[in-house]
Amino acid sequence: MQKPTNEKWYNQIGEQGDCVVSTRVRLARNLRGYPFPNRMTAQQKRELCQSVRDALLGDGSALRGEFRYLCMNEISDLQAAAMVERHLISPEFAKKRDGEALILSADESISIMLCEEDHIRIQVMRAGLAVRDALDVAQKLDYLLDERLDVAFDEQLGYLTSCPTNLGTGMRASVMLHLPAIAQAGAVSQIASAVSKIGLTMRGTYGEGSRADGSLYQLSNQITLGISEQTACDNLETIAGQIIAKEREARSNTPDQLMVDQVYRALGTLRYARMLSYDELLSLTGYLRIGVGMGLLKTVDYNTVNRLIIELGRASMAEQNNSASDPAARDTLRADIVRQALGEA
Amino acid sequence: MQKPTNEKWYNQIGEQGDCVVSTRVRLARNLRGYPFPNRMTAQQKRELCQSVRDALLGDGSALRGEFRYLCMNEISDLQAAAMVERHLISPEFAKKRDGEALILSADESISIMLCEEDHIRIQVMRAGLAVRDALDVAQKLDYLLDERLDVAFDEQLGYLTSCPTNLGTGMRASVMLHLPAIAQAGAVSQIASAVSKIGLTMRGTYGEGSRADGSLYQLSNQITLGISEQTACDNLETIAGQIIAKEREARSNTPDQLMVDQVYRALGTLRYARMLSYDELLSLTGYLRIGVGMGLLKTVDYNTVNRLIIELGRASMAEQNNSASDPAARDTLRADIVRQALGEA
Repeated sequence: MQKPTNEKWYNQIGEQGDCVVSTRVRLARNLRGYPFPNRMTAQQKRELCQSVRDALLGDGSALRGEFRYLCMNEISDLQAAAMVERHLISPEFAKKRDGEALILSADESISIMLCEEDHIRIQVMRAGLAVRDALDVAQKLDYLLDERLDVAFDEQLGYLTSCPTNLGTGMRASVMLHLPAIAQAGAVSQIASAVSKIGLTMRGTYGEGSRADGSLYQLSNQITLGISEQTACDNLETIAGQIIAKEREARSNTPDQLMVDQVYRALGTLRYARMLSYDELLSLTGYLRIGVGMGLLKTVDYNTVNRLIIELGRASMAEQNNSASDPAARDTLRADIVRQALGEA
Repeated sequence: MQKPTNEKWYNQIGEQGDCVVSTRVRLARNLRGYPFPNRMTAQQKRELCQSVRDALLGDGSALRGEFRYLCMNEISDLQAAAMVERHLISPEFAKKRDGEALILSADESISIMLCEEDHIRIQVMRAGLAVRDALDVAQKLDYLLDERLDVAFDEQLGYLTSCPTNLGTGMRASVMLHLPAIAQAGAVSQIASAVSKIGLTMRGTYGEGSRADGSLYQLSNQITLGISEQTACDNLETIAGQIIAKEREARSNTPDQLMVDQVYRALGTLRYARMLSYDELLSLTGYLRIGVGMGLLKTVDYNTVNRLIIELGRASMAEQNNSASDPAARDTLRADIVRQALGEA
């Protein structure tokens, strides 16, 4: 058992866990007096990173003990890939090694990329559906920055950002939905098309469309201009709620007997397999999620499922364990960990 | 636990159980003074059946307590179908309802069809590879019949039979082999072609070729003329031994890790599924058989596997349980029985 301070965010109990894996809110901020990162020198980047570090983690800061400050040029490719997998940094940021830095909370729920596309990108993650809660945390950090640094803000345009699509709130909020019944009914593209008309986007998180990806979809806001953060988050939460209702209805229309069989088969395979690919893990844990929602699986919970899919990605595993760099060895180790987590028979 | 006398033959421990499910020996006999069954009247059939019954199960016969005598016109279609499934009678015999009869031992290892294609067909089954043993039992019954009845025998042609392909010994011996590794290597047809040149036949027991059939193949002798029963049985056992050696070699060439994974996945599915078709049962129990052979599955044995595939056929289940007449209900019941037999987790 890890100490509470190291407890990862995905071990928290989330709302609507039968259909929602996680919520993420991101704020893009820039400082006056510096060009956008794509035009910054390495020296400017280091300066900017240091000033953000001082503002948030300087002497006397309450945050100091809870966060790590990581220089990206001290991070290995593998560590960076693992961070991408766990959604702590963007794939683009993983390639940067020239003065960029990352501020990361011990529970990995808060990550602040410095000198990614914008000077500062605050990201907050939560288990389950928790858009307002994630926004609250992000805004508290934003207030701190605003107090101590000269954040670029325009009365007309709002927060200035490197890419105009983020102008205004600079906020992107997203919810990772688990929609196996909607996917099975072939209704994903219809929903994706409907939400696009009201300023939202829905896309596959791990590859598009196919069922083998675990039926995970990310729903996020697109509009950042002429709308408040609160309103955008409320919209997202409302639409997510409607999609969740559709998913539950679709699940209840699936013959119970068949679904129960699939849930138990998934548990059987996870508890017995000696080799397990990540794609199969995603697919099978999807059924576990359904089983937990149906009240079938008393010994499994959403947290366990979430933890497995977050911690057992290829790079995350390879980072944690040297022997997991070879795909076959990794599949074997993954199966071992899953059996242990789900109670080997 | 059933009483010893009711213990079925397939609950015995057989030789070479990793590759051999069962052995069967059949003797075709006819009596002088009657036409072959296809030309007999119902009255003649009843007469003939009665005389065989008297010879084997009459007053003072030691066999009397161990056998049942069943008139086929008192048997339901479902019972007959279940008997076909368990290889106690032929599919053709199942359709007969006009004076035919069956003599069946309590453990179902011996069945004697009266007025099938020949007047008398003695069949003996054994678990595992036991051709000589099965022949011994069949011959003891044959001596009894010979002592008490006028069996049609010609010095030149041997035993006279309805179909000339059985002339001579009237014997057909067969071995049901489990050959998943040979099947996976695509070498079944090559072996089938080779054995056909030395007077044997190999064919799929449950549908030809596909892996989904559980990779069960029946190897049997074809030649009945100019060869003694002993020699024919020795040939069969020798060739079966060679095929078994090939199968074991092919299994040892399969990457262990992959095979171990497949074995455990099969066990996981069998222990957790809530619906199970007979085809899937055959396929999955095939992996259990391999797992037992590899020493992986301490809590499973060949007998359990054999019992499941013999008792959980469609008709056998429907005969035993009224609720199993509907396919979905049967698949559910089959899964329940399998979970119970294999130790539900």
